[in-house]
Amino acid sequence: MSQFRKDIFTGRWVIVAETEAVRPGDFRFKKFTRGTTFCPFCETHEASTPPEIFAVRPGGSPANGPGWKVRVVPNSHLRLKIEGDLGRRPEGFHDVMNGIGADEVIIETPRHDRSLHELEVNEVEDVIRTWIARIIDLERDKRIRCVLIFKNHGEEAGAHTITHSISQLMALPVTPRVIKAKLMAARDYYALKERCLYCDVLHQELAERKRVVAENDDFVSLAPFASRSPFEIGVFPKFHSSAFSWISSVQVKNLAQVLRDVLQKLDKILGGPPYNLALQDRPFLRPREGYWKTIEEDFHWHLEVLPQVIELTGFERASWFFYNPVPPELAARCLSG
Amino acid sequence: MSQFRKDIFTGRWVIVAETEAVRPGDFRFKKFTRGTTFCPFCETHEASTPPEIFAVRPGGSPANGPGWKVRVVPNSHLRLKIEGDLGRRPEGFHDVMNGIGADEVIIETPRHDRSLHELEVNEVEDVIRTWIARIIDLERDKRIRCVLIFKNHGEEAGAHTITHSISQLMALPVTPRVIKAKLMAARDYYALKERCLYCDVLHQELAERKRVVAENDDFVSLAPFASRSPFEIGVFPKFHSSAFSWISSVQVKNLAQVLRDVLQKLDKILGGPPYNLALQDRPFLRPREGYWKTIEEDFHWHLEVLPQVIELTGFERASWFFYNPVPPELAARCLSG
Repeated sequence: MSQFRKDIFTGRWVIVAETEAVRPGDFRFKKFTRGTTFCPFCETHEASTPPEIFAVRPGGSPANGPGWKVRVVPNSHLRLKIEGDLGRRPEGFHDVMNGIGADEVIIETPRHDRSLHELEVNEVEDVIRTWIARIIDLERDKRIRCVLIFKNHGEEAGAHTITHSISQLMALPVTPRVIKAKLMAARDYYALKERCLYCDVLHQELAERKRVVAENDDFVSLAPFASRSPFEIGVFPKFHSSAFSWISSVQVKNLAQVLRDVLQKLDKILGGPPYNLALQDRPFLRPREGYWKTIEEDFHWHLEVLPQVIELTGFERASWFFYNPVPPELAARCLSG
Repeated sequence: MSQFRKDIFTGRWVIVAETEAVRPGDFRFKKFTRGTTFCPFCETHEASTPPEIFAVRPGGSPANGPGWKVRVVPNSHLRLKIEGDLGRRPEGFHDVMNGIGADEVIIETPRHDRSLHELEVNEVEDVIRTWIARIIDLERDKRIRCVLIFKNHGEEAGAHTITHSISQLMALPVTPRVIKAKLMAARDYYALKERCLYCDVLHQELAERKRVVAENDDFVSLAPFASRSPFEIGVFPKFHSSAFSWISSVQVKNLAQVLRDVLQKLDKILGGPPYNLALQDRPFLRPREGYWKTIEEDFHWHLEVLPQVIELTGFERASWFFYNPVPPELAARCLSG
């Protein structure tokens, strides 16, 4: 019989099928293929993007030319602008604000022929350090409450025709509901136990080892108990920390290793699936957010990796309730075997 | 400049582009095309489905044979079973229940060559009356808390290879988070104003007429202020009611008219888009749900129609925060013009 499983981090319910028979090859999706037309993100094409905001340039090469490892530029189809006032106001019953925020593209490699999982560990470290540098810079802007970093790999994950390896950053003046739900669940748990919800769940998962995919000294990758979709993977620090940007350089290396390992496994076992990657970080500490005082103790940042191998239907869209045909225990066995 | 808009019904934020330049023809999607292989849902193929649960048979024809207008059968790939105990229990830190509930297919017409918007008004009425009959029947089952009715039209809306016009029903022992969020927002508003949030918003929308698509005596269709996606439409009763199943036969006719009109307009203006339709109804009144006492005054049922003309990306999936490139005022003008 199938099971209803509750995601303890969000309160979301998922229906998980009961089966041992699913194989990774059962899923139909458009396998990732690399585009061959002109790409604005390649090295030597720097003039095709807006001027860079940040870059990793080990040789000290000048901005907006070649010689970089990672490069951050504004999105050329800007959804938000960084200049101006929030203008938070009513419109009759409704609430409106100006579209203020950051909308950036992180070009993860100068090479067109490599995806994130095909980079060397030290190159993935450069990407992670770039994410951190952008968060630290944006935290100084008092209008910004929350930075989202995410990645769309493959057409069905929303990458459209972009096949160069990029991630994206959006800095928002509000905290998204999903993050708020996670903060509130973590706060309520801490109030009850005086321990971090995530630390406690990881303690159990690492003891049971039914859903663990891989680990090293600092990080663990696992298939969450109430996975929304087949082969969903969470990457969690084993140490307690509410803020992604606080990680040390040793931890950056260990994170690069675990993340690359997860993405390589998914690529190999599922055969080049489209996927989304997202950082779930705490919002910046600003007054007037009811939960901010205890956020450092309550919350525990993490990464979510969601292979997009089944279509969302009206059921998920109407309810934000999911049906997952692959039990996470089976997914973990496929990926760790 | 783009705008952040808050959806007053859920607390969800949306980024809405500022543009007058979008045309309905700008969106690329797989246009709906009807399959021609053997279809288990056609009249005379009744033996290809599990035995029927309910049918509209005006001539009194026997079950599981021809002569029906609308027919309800269990989903042949059952995600939930109706027999058994909930078995609500912990699994270490996690919460689990048996996969108990209903998983039904509502075959909206015996004809393979008609979609819902191509039916006559009286045929759409039969579909609506069938939804109501199923809800009333399932409300008697004390294990069930919430019935979701939804429709996937077209492959990109999750219909896979099914092209016969069907809707689906899932009866759940828990209330999905989105419905809970709506109930709580409506409850908080009522506590402040002693008026229904939905009635008040409709009052304003019907006075301003910037987002209204169409209306009749009992129902109004409009593009919600914080529409998640291009051409999202809500269908609301103009009278206050928390429970969909309480509508009168005159109201059923008026709902059929407005719903058919919306679907016909979307089909014509966008050119056969995939879409999802979902009923947002109150959960059944059961003890131990904190909000149940005031639900009749607080909540106001409605339908959501979501054309699937842009891909969800990692941004939406990570945050349940949306970017909508088409202002709802423009969508309403395109559809009502």
